[in-house]
Amino acid sequence: MTRGWDLGGWALGDLLSTLFERKRAGDVTASGKPLPELCRALLTGQGEVSAMKRAAEVLLRYRQADAAEKAAFFRFLADEMDLDPAAVTLAAQAYADTPDARHLSALLAVAEPPRQELLRRLNQAPGGTAELVAMRVDLMAQAKAEPDLARVDLDFRHLFASWFNRGFLVLRRIGWESPANILEKIIAYEAVHEIHSWDDLRRRLEPPDRRCFAFFHPAMPDDPLIFVEVALTRGIPGAIGPLLAEDRRALSPSQVDTAVFYSISNCQAGLRGISFGNSLIKQVVDVLGREVAGLKTFVTLSPIPGLSRWMGTQDDAAKAMLAADPAKLDPEALRRMAAHYLLEAKAEDRQPLDPVARFHLGNGAEVHEIHAAADLSPKGRQQSCGAMVNYLYDPARVEQNHEAFATHQTVAAARGVKALTGPAKDRKEKGLKTNG
Amino acid sequence: MTRGWDLGGWALGDLLSTLFERKRAGDVTASGKPLPELCRALLTGQGEVSAMKRAAEVLLRYRQADAAEKAAFFRFLADEMDLDPAAVTLAAQAYADTPDARHLSALLAVAEPPRQELLRRLNQAPGGTAELVAMRVDLMAQAKAEPDLARVDLDFRHLFASWFNRGFLVLRRIGWESPANILEKIIAYEAVHEIHSWDDLRRRLEPPDRRCFAFFHPAMPDDPLIFVEVALTRGIPGAIGPLLAEDRRALSPSQVDTAVFYSISNCQAGLRGISFGNSLIKQVVDVLGREVAGLKTFVTLSPIPGLSRWMGTQDDAAKAMLAADPAKLDPEALRRMAAHYLLEAKAEDRQPLDPVARFHLGNGAEVHEIHAAADLSPKGRQQSCGAMVNYLYDPARVEQNHEAFATHQTVAAARGVKALTGPAKDRKEKGLKTNG
Amino acid sequence: MTRGWDLGGWALGDLLSTLFERKRAGDVTASGKPLPELCRALLTGQGEVSAMKRAAEVLLRYRQADAAEKAAFFRFLADEMDLDPAAVTLAAQAYADTPDARHLSALLAVAEPPRQELLRRLNQAPGGTAELVAMRVDLMAQAKAEPDLARVDLDFRHLFASWFNRGFLVLRRIGWESPANILEKIIAYEAVHEIHSWDDLRRRLEPPDRRCFAFFHPAMPDDPLIFVEVALTRGIPGAIGPLLAEDRRALSPSQVDTAVFYSISNCQAGLRGISFGNSLIKQVVDVLGREVAGLKTFVTLSPIPGLSRWMGTQDDAAKAMLAADPAKLDPEALRRMAAHYLLEAKAEDRQPLDPVARFHLGNGAEVHEIHAAADLSPKGRQQSCGAMVNYLYDPARVEQNHEAFATHQTVAAARGVKALTGPAKDRKEKGLKTNG
Amino acid sequence: MTRGWDLGGWALGDLLSTLFERKRAGDVTASGKPLPELCRALLTGQGEVSAMKRAAEVLLRYRQADAAEKAAFFRFLADEMDLDPAAVTLAAQAYADTPDARHLSALLAVAEPPRQELLRRLNQAPGGTAELVAMRVDLMAQAKAEPDLARVDLDFRHLFASWFNRGFLVLRRIGWESPANILEKIIAYEAVHEIHSWDDLRRRLEPPDRRCFAFFHPAMPDDPLIFVEVALTRGIPGAIGPLLAEDRRALSPSQVDTAVFYSISNCQAGLRGISFGNSLIKQVVDVLGREVAGLKTFVTLSPIPGLSRWMGTQDDAAKAMLAADPAKLDPEALRRMAAHYLLEAKAEDRQPLDPVARFHLGNGAEVHEIHAAADLSPKGRQQSCGAMVNYLYDPARVEQNHEAFATHQTVAAARGVKALTGPAKDRKEKGLKTNG
Repeated sequence: MTRGWDLGGWALGDLLSTLFERKRAGDVTASGKPLPELCRALLTGQGEVSAMKRAAEVLLRYRQADAAEKAAFFRFLADEMDLDPAAVTLAAQAYADTPDARHLSALLAVAEPPRQELLRRLNQAPGGTAELVAMRVDLMAQAKAEPDLARVDLDFRHLFASWFNRGFLVLRRIGWESPANILEKIIAYEAVHEIHSWDDLRRRLEPPDRRCFAFFHPAMPDDPLIFVEVALTRGIPGAIGPLLAEDRRALSPSQVDTAVFYSISNCQAGLRGISFGNSLIKQVVDVLGREVAGLKTFVTLSPIPGLSRWMGTQDDAAKAMLAADPAKLDPEALRRMAAHYLLEAKAEDRQPLDPVARFHLGNGAEVHEIHAAADLSPKGRQQSCGAMVNYLYDPARVEQNHEAFATHQTVAAARGVKALTGPAKDRKEKGLKTNG
Repeated sequence: MTRGWDLGGWALGDLLSTLFERKRAGDVTASGKPLPELCRALLTGQGEVSAMKRAAEVLLRYRQADAAEKAAFFRFLADEMDLDPAAVTLAAQAYADTPDARHLSALLAVAEPPRQELLRRLNQAPGGTAELVAMRVDLMAQAKAEPDLARVDLDFRHLFASWFNRGFLVLRRIGWESPANILEKIIAYEAVHEIHSWDDLRRRLEPPDRRCFAFFHPAMPDDPLIFVEVALTRGIPGAIGPLLAEDRRALSPSQVDTAVFYSISNCQAGLRGISFGNSLIKQVVDVLGREVAGLKTFVTLSPIPGLSRWMGTQDDAAKAMLAADPAKLDPEALRRMAAHYLLEAKAEDRQPLDPVARFHLGNGAEVHEIHAAADLSPKGRQQSCGAMVNYLYDPARVEQNHEAFATHQTVAAARGVKALTGPAKDRKEKGLKTNG
Repeated sequence: MTRGWDLGGWALGDLLSTLFERKRAGDVTASGKPLPELCRALLTGQGEVSAMKRAAEVLLRYRQADAAEKAAFFRFLADEMDLDPAAVTLAAQAYADTPDARHLSALLAVAEPPRQELLRRLNQAPGGTAELVAMRVDLMAQAKAEPDLARVDLDFRHLFASWFNRGFLVLRRIGWESPANILEKIIAYEAVHEIHSWDDLRRRLEPPDRRCFAFFHPAMPDDPLIFVEVALTRGIPGAIGPLLAEDRRALSPSQVDTAVFYSISNCQAGLRGISFGNSLIKQVVDVLGREVAGLKTFVTLSPIPGLSRWMGTQDDAAKAMLAADPAKLDPEALRRMAAHYLLEAKAEDRQPLDPVARFHLGNGAEVHEIHAAADLSPKGRQQSCGAMVNYLYDPARVEQNHEAFATHQTVAAARGVKALTGPAKDRKEKGLKTNG
Repeated sequence: MTRGWDLGGWALGDLLSTLFERKRAGDVTASGKPLPELCRALLTGQGEVSAMKRAAEVLLRYRQADAAEKAAFFRFLADEMDLDPAAVTLAAQAYADTPDARHLSALLAVAEPPRQELLRRLNQAPGGTAELVAMRVDLMAQAKAEPDLARVDLDFRHLFASWFNRGFLVLRRIGWESPANILEKIIAYEAVHEIHSWDDLRRRLEPPDRRCFAFFHPAMPDDPLIFVEVALTRGIPGAIGPLLAEDRRALSPSQVDTAVFYSISNCQAGLRGISFGNSLIKQVVDVLGREVAGLKTFVTLSPIPGLSRWMGTQDDAAKAMLAADPAKLDPEALRRMAAHYLLEAKAEDRQPLDPVARFHLGNGAEVHEIHAAADLSPKGRQQSCGAMVNYLYDPARVEQNHEAFATHQTVAAARGVKALTGPAKDRKEKGLKTNG
């Protein structure tokens, strides 16, 4: 009934710690010195006594900087804070000659761009981690104009991969009892099926047949990194509308047999390239399997975001379908088209063309079923003529699917889905003519 | 009265996460393959789907390994998992020729020993962080026999410095209401003034004039990294006995004006070289200053661990003092001796010879007062003829002290302490040797 | 930064407890027996082994009952579950004859209506407390039609006064980080200045110069009992509009000197007559005084809900003001009118006519200032011609004000407010009527 | 891994609340007035503004009072704070004449001793609940000398039964991660098998096959009310020694099939007569059944505290057994003796003579097996010649057992135990001669 109400001495220490750190942050006043000068001082400062303070000042100055100053700051990181290849060569040769700890240490010291140590020191400021993640968003934007800044991004990414190591992440259930300041981020970050209001959010969190889970990093406790929304259903659903309907009746846990992952959203643009989605799904499968006794099937209901674009590159019949009203398309024709796209359309890297397919197949899921007229929202019509797909996570096969996909790019699929590509192939030989 | 009793949905998610991870860990069964083979598989495995499982298996195998297997494993890390200096040279030259992101990326990839990535992947296993910290303890022991393993230790240390960045640590108050499984670690780790029993511990935590604070890392929530014990007093104490006496009367917060840091202990041998002690003291000064209104003075009551040893290298008078009963020594003579040692005895690196002095002076503290017959325990008699010292943390001067010390090795000291060295200097002319 | 993240074993036990109790509740199936029969069984059942289960069944049956069944149930409580005055008389005489524990015990047993014990047993069901509070809402509604049911209400009220004793309540800060399922209740229960949306709510909780505090009972952890909204300001505000404006700039804690209680709302209709409002304000004054260093003044900005109605009973000039546009009224005239109303208009019980005045003056506050055109919302115009009042909580005078008011109905007021009644008195001679 | 680390705004509010209340309590200074005078003022004080303060003063004065003052205070409660039977008679007759709410209210007002309202007001002081529980301990002691004080105890008990209603209690797991200030109470309160040290405690809490659960009241969050210690075993144990052995090997959850309740201890002498033990066991059975998949049997391993005393009242053979070494007794003879005692020896109230039997049989358990030489500690030897008993809680039969016992005092027992009484009876007819 009441849960966890005695934290003992913890609350006190933690609270004071919080106040302290906020105050520290609040104390900081920009000295007016330019960012590079502040960064050099932070990097050369001996002892860490004042490092937190100096780091906080750099971050404050950065926040207050305008676009030009930020661009100059990134140039500073790219140029002055780069490694010196000549020094690396020398140290590498010295280590080759005398492969001992002293020479290795010297080599490692010069073989890492100094900006990495700078970022580590900036991270000591209260709230530093979140600010560095935000800084990378700026950097990636700027790198579009100045591709050379990609060199700087390498170091952000390297450090983030280390800091956001799966071993440091915490899985949490998000519910209607979660703090509002976190829930508003769920609303903001939902990228697949938009959440229109707090009432809409509540419909996705509060009913007994709904779940939501997110990964957090302890240094950003109010900011989810990635979250997945789950519907518990009886049978595998073939359309998104009924799942999200305002007036649907919730099922009790004893009635459900299937967990449907209907939306997965990354929250932090600044963590692009740091993947944790596959861990999330695998872990949620495990958690739900324990919590809800009757669950037998774990499946997604996923968009096929690249289908329409790909169809636009196919024959006239495909293009004709693009022009038609998705609600009136021949379902079988669209399913064949989608099956062909998901199972056979590959990018240059031999991976599936569809990014969502790439993600789930890479995790070891298999294409289980394809549905026409499954998402008739404007976005669904536009990106996939209304088609959706179920990817199945079968714990017994996930690992071998994953290995086969990683090694041979084998796309695992249910027999019925594979069958859809047969006729399609035949017709393709005939020019891929579809129903008129 | 009741504190924090509604965690909302958190508790559930977190609990399940915990169960999940424990189970995962429990699932692991050693495959019987040798460690290097398992490590190679972990490192080359594509996708992270099964990485957690493989990492857990490596750690399980390591735990079960005997000393010879562990030594072989470290050799494997040192040799096979080292970087290739020739490849580094090549990549450095390529980057010098074409300083773009692609070439930098290639350089960074070969300039980092592969064992770093291996350690990052091992960290993904549940409880991995703590196991890697423990592994480094084994490594450091083995490196005494095989100094070349210091090359491996460089990478452990590099990663730990990044993972245990001050920005990721959490300050907590330790009290008598803290969990017993944490308190037993406080008993075990106390390194300065041994805690003899749970009753002894309670005397250091429960009274209203006692405090204890520790740093924790979120991935090791039950394991303090470093802690400091504090006595709130009226005036600056000159001996440890009365502070720890069983029958002393506690003061109320309204009676105290001084916070005495009388013990600071590092808890994790595996984090040697990763410093957070100065942050801890500075933050605790701040926290206490807010919590206890009347505090005006922040000071240590510290041992002088190297005094006796140093006195043994001095003149006959010094050696005579070593032989005498500390309780009967001429206090002034011992104080002069200690002042001389603390203010003037330097190591080769021009730092103070005394390790505790080095720590506090490096933090910006100053030598405030020296006391004879202040610690008459066997350890106190043996290491410093019973002498102790107060280092003063004056928030108004900490920063300038720190800078002066860092730049010029200037030892800040109260006038009275400096005066003690006057006569000492005279004696020095008469034969007292100095170091450095 | 991270707060209270180790609950140790608590979370587990508590969670299981929760699951257990929910399950228990879920297990219950209505047996189809009529409520009185179930109640009799619950009351006579020996041992408490199955009491929780029986209690849960009664509550389930009650929830499912229609209006007629509920009315019949209340009649059952009123008639069959009443005490027997003849038995009371006998037992009282026996106790008078032999005033020992046995006879007192016998007297107490018959002098309490059996429905009290029934309610205590119903409270053992999971969630029982909240259900009984809700049941009283039904009862009070029914008692309007059947005044005799007030006898039953006496017992609800008696038990609730005992259960919701101030010593069992917990004060909590409500913030934007509070659970959404609690925040939605704040939105629903706000009775003074309506909260229009989640954005509106956020404006009242998130800025650094806003606070909200509520009392909770541990058995209803998701349901606030009463809450107060506070604005931290510089100086005492004279109008509500600027306090709630969407585009206002928040002050930092270092800029504020005044805490303004601008809204107090009771949440539980079923707890009518159980007062905790005065405790709440006194405690929040204390909490804020500690947390925000510069606070010197604690004051309300309160509506004057009965002013218009009272003016309608006064002379023609007063009635003319009622008809005018509040934004254009002579401010001084309205302030005089309000001062007269607040200081001199009394009900039959010699208490102030205005219910809000009655509450704050009863708490020991004093009428500090009156403002015209202070609340130009439709409600403000309608109930008080736009006037509002500041009641001042001066910790140094609260107690004596309270005593004087309790004993002699003395209304404490600032000199300036008292002065306003001078001219008013003159006008009274010219025809202003008073009450009481 | 990390659990529940975001309390959002809660921690703050709760902390402040705590500080506030402690301060309030600290503020109190005894005015030097006698307790009765202070109580009268508390009772007649209008408004509750200063009630908390007055209540705190009474409790402070009480704590400081010596034995004579406390006795006088209890007399004051017994005499001046008693109800007036004449007033009750009058009010009862008035209500009989006019059975409306007004007259019932008047009757209820005089039919409750004023000390009940006094106790309710005292409870408003911070920590009041715990102090009243402690006060009752004094009262019960004093009532031994002055039996008339039992009249006062009636009111304490009445209020405590209401306040400590099962619906307000919280079940918690106690583990080695629980706060030390709670664990020390477990050590202190263990009443069945003494806990000798913190190491002993740890052996009962930390291994994966040990559990401990307690009930708490939210107003006494650091004070367990009752707790039960559980061993998870394979098969039903027949002796206490191996369960508590220092060097035993713990079982993993997958190996166990039985939960053994081997110790149940009430913690609060001041709550005597307020029962929650049966709820505790039933709830723990449910919790464990969910948490540990393989559990099939729920059983106690209980002392038979009254066996030796009862045997002393039996024939010579029984008395001879009392004199023998329990380790060398004929096990069958002792088992027969114990079976006879447990199944057939009844008190005047027709309940089992043995208090532990009375408790478990009253809960619906059944006598499952009896063991000789099962507790060879001095206490076990002394109270039951080393015999112990398993009471079985079979969820399928608990309810009907309970009903049969409550209605007909039927003692449920396993066939084997019943059989033991057969031969015993025969032999008893022959003089109850046992082996020599």
